[in-house]
Amino acid sequence: MPAANSRLRIWCNYDFEETLARELRERTSSYQLTLAHSSVSAPAASAQVPDILLGQPDVDYLLSHTPRWTELTSAGYTAYDRDDLRKVFRARSSLLTNASTVFDEACAQHLLAMIFALARELPRCLDNQRAGRVWLHDESRFGRRFLLNHQKVVIFGFGAIARRLVELLRPLGMQIVGVRRTPRGDEGIPIVRPNESNSHMADADHVIDILPANDETAHFFDAARFGTCRKGARFYNIGRGTTVDQAALIAALRSGRLGAAYLDVTDPEPLPPDHPLWDAPNCFITPHIGGAHANEQARLLRHFLLNLAAFESGQPLSDRVI
Amino acid sequence: MPAANSRLRIWCNYDFEETLARELRERTSSYQLTLAHSSVSAPAASAQVPDILLGQPDVDYLLSHTPRWTELTSAGYTAYDRDDLRKVFRARSSLLTNASTVFDEACAQHLLAMIFALARELPRCLDNQRAGRVWLHDESRFGRRFLLNHQKVVIFGFGAIARRLVELLRPLGMQIVGVRRTPRGDEGIPIVRPNESNSHMADADHVIDILPANDETAHFFDAARFGTCRKGARFYNIGRGTTVDQAALIAALRSGRLGAAYLDVTDPEPLPPDHPLWDAPNCFITPHIGGAHANEQARLLRHFLLNLAAFESGQPLSDRVI
Repeated sequence: MPAANSRLRIWCNYDFEETLARELRERTSSYQLTLAHSSVSAPAASAQVPDILLGQPDVDYLLSHTPRWTELTSAGYTAYDRDDLRKVFRARSSLLTNASTVFDEACAQHLLAMIFALARELPRCLDNQRAGRVWLHDESRFGRRFLLNHQKVVIFGFGAIARRLVELLRPLGMQIVGVRRTPRGDEGIPIVRPNESNSHMADADHVIDILPANDETAHFFDAARFGTCRKGARFYNIGRGTTVDQAALIAALRSGRLGAAYLDVTDPEPLPPDHPLWDAPNCFITPHIGGAHANEQARLLRHFLLNLAAFESGQPLSDRVI
Repeated sequence: MPAANSRLRIWCNYDFEETLARELRERTSSYQLTLAHSSVSAPAASAQVPDILLGQPDVDYLLSHTPRWTELTSAGYTAYDRDDLRKVFRARSSLLTNASTVFDEACAQHLLAMIFALARELPRCLDNQRAGRVWLHDESRFGRRFLLNHQKVVIFGFGAIARRLVELLRPLGMQIVGVRRTPRGDEGIPIVRPNESNSHMADADHVIDILPANDETAHFFDAARFGTCRKGARFYNIGRGTTVDQAALIAALRSGRLGAAYLDVTDPEPLPPDHPLWDAPNCFITPHIGGAHANEQARLLRHFLLNLAAFESGQPLSDRVI
């Protein structure tokens, strides 16, 4: 074993539960590991610069220091999606990975849950259970619930979540179109560019927003775009709240242009209790939990350890962003 | 065209909406068609006995008269599931069909909606939206939501709904076991008999009840059976309310033996507003709408017309019960 001061240094500010923190220590015993609390955003100024960062490190620290590899413990990386960071990292051959594949499956399942909940009117049934307790069987039997089969879905932001959602929806025989900036041809479904999407909005039963937050996507879904929707379309957002003009969304729900919205992300988050989005008609909100699942900490650890093995042996890292 | 009095007589007490009633009249113009309101349970005593009945005709009428074919406009046929009726119909070569294939898809999708809603904690999020509006992101991020992949599902009552549910669940790679009285070997998943099901209950994450109502299934899910469940299992019922001992179900929810229940059927229906099931912990209820969907009337009509064509040409009828 090399002397302690020649060992690679790992610095982590993700709050692993104790058994997983122990596993991390054991599995990285040939490294110098520093476990910081998540409230600590960067290594101490006096400390040696780590070779590897794991967690959600401060962007300014990354810009001014030279880690060899940074792994984010999230799928989103809005704070790190900056030209200056890309430039610095590329110049230093510094790697940035995220944990996209840890959260893709849960996000795709969350979208599926939202789609099915609306199709089967589960929110309305729960509201009835909480107040009234009418047996809605006859009154609402027709016209509000629908089979998903053969309906049209348009997915904005075609990455790993969308790819998995397409697999989950496959048994329903839906008509699915993806929208992405740069079609690659390997998506397995028809793909159009954003400027070609309006005709698909016009006959979509379901419009799904998985867009990341950046300058191009800010308020991408605005009054004009909601105006191109088929009347009664369902809108789902598991991307970022900033991609939606929320006043326009509320107006579209009030006018009936949108039949319903199911949102896992809002702007801001947390959404204040008095925000009008909570009360907008047929608007349902989950608190940014799309990727959450019981064993995500264990899966985050496994993701890092697999990438660490790849890093050691010079293999490509999984979920590389830069 | 034969004289009116030699034409086959069809009697229908299903309330088709006007455009569909018109289509039925047009498509059966070579028959004598009588359209009765659903509140009328049988042809008038003075009328000639119809050859074909469509809707929900009175059982006593069927026992004492001799229609050649009766098509029920429902998937359930509890009222008609009687030995005396079977005996009489067989003796007269009288046919009984239901509309199972019209409702199977919606029922399977309803089950999928329930399964995903619990996995993603949508009811808890909606309760929070209606009161409190806490951003539950951090507090509940771990441990309550879970990935469905590789979890175990046990389905009691393996017919067309279960078959379709298995297809819808396939992309998740779940471990699925079916329970049916008479395994046929063509189910595509492992099938056990009811008396062999306890070991599967013991490690099931999801227990699904699609049992019909009959003497053998009355209170099939009782305290003893819930006692065999893995702690925290989810229970779903889209079969019949009478298959469950509801006091035992409530006790299992209160003790935490069951993690949650999602019920589309109860006993009685409508469930009275003061029934304790409405308030049982983690118990969610939809008002027997599993099969409901926007165009079910049109699909019921198509089902009958296809069966009518088969009946005319001596071909086997779809969804034959007797």
